[in-house]
Amino acid sequence: MSQLLQQAVSEFAKLPGIGRRTALRLAMHLLKMDCASVEQMTESIYRFRRDIRHCEVCNNLSDTPRCPICSNPERDHSTICVVEQVGDLMSIENTRQYKGMYHVLGGVISPMQGVGPSDLKIDQLMEKIATGEVREVILAISTSVEGETTLFYILNRLKQFPAVKISTIARGIGFGDELEYVDELTITHALLNRREVER
Amino acid sequence: MSQLLQQAVSEFAKLPGIGRRTALRLAMHLLKMDCASVEQMTESIYRFRRDIRHCEVCNNLSDTPRCPICSNPERDHSTICVVEQVGDLMSIENTRQYKGMYHVLGGVISPMQGVGPSDLKIDQLMEKIATGEVREVILAISTSVEGETTLFYILNRLKQFPAVKISTIARGIGFGDELEYVDELTITHALLNRREVER
Repeated sequence: MSQLLQQAVSEFAKLPGIGRRTALRLAMHLLKMDCASVEQMTESIYRFRRDIRHCEVCNNLSDTPRCPICSNPERDHSTICVVEQVGDLMSIENTRQYKGMYHVLGGVISPMQGVGPSDLKIDQLMEKIATGEVREVILAISTSVEGETTLFYILNRLKQFPAVKISTIARGIGFGDELEYVDELTITHALLNRREVER
Repeated sequence: MSQLLQQAVSEFAKLPGIGRRTALRLAMHLLKMDCASVEQMTESIYRFRRDIRHCEVCNNLSDTPRCPICSNPERDHSTICVVEQVGDLMSIENTRQYKGMYHVLGGVISPMQGVGPSDLKIDQLMEKIATGEVREVILAISTSVEGETTLFYILNRLKQFPAVKISTIARGIGFGDELEYVDELTITHALLNRREVER
């Protein structure tokens, strides 16, 4: 087999969820594209990896030192939503409902994978809150074991700021979820946190 | 959202079978790779598109003017297996059973998509056979309507070489296929072409 093809296939196969068969299909597809388009594609991908940086304020991915959310004066700078990763931030942004700030931790505490609190942007979060400009912190962290550990650790650190309102996002049955297939813990939480209907 | 990220996602999403959600996951994965690896990846992919060529003898993908199969003196140069595309050639090579030459047509005749005989490497096949060095032509073309049309057209052109043996690959029930789920045409062919068991 051609060395050039073999290398292209090996490189595609390094991406998650892409096996050798898919990688070969992708390589074959490149031959149907014109050379300039493929150059533009590979350049954009490399430029993203080389030039992307993290916002110095919230740790979001950004083209500039400060991301568009942090530089937007129309957003509510007194509310911070703490998320694990950039993808979570994007999911919340896609709802177009939240108008506050973010703080991206960059992961969760995981002793198994050697990730401690100092590997995450927790100190920076505390520094931000210590300025006195933050009135509410929303913790939008996943309910995995690592997520709960991280949540517990952050809640502990937040005890030094009794004036700041702290909340976690609501757990419950998702819209469109069938009760029959929802796990017991979620149903238990949904029952405990039931809301009285206004009549 | 970051322009750099948006561009990378758009470019990934141009690949077949990759939607925006997968594209975003791939872009995020790049951040876990070091910059040099991503550079190597994108360079290999672009180099493949820019430098790959078609073998001047059989139209296989090749790094050199003549592909390794055509330049191999130990292979049987008197047998040519005609396939639609390079992927088919690779599938046959993977069996390690075939020791002859190939001829890649580069597609099938498809009036619907504006592909006529002159868009395929059919004339080159005839020229090769006209040299008198070819003793057998194996037609390994798919059984789609376009494939059958192409097969019929080539068979017609091959009539001018009565000394050349012509065969098509066997149609039948694949190993591991359950008869219950095999289409009727395949079963009909498999029955018609049944083989007597030696006793």
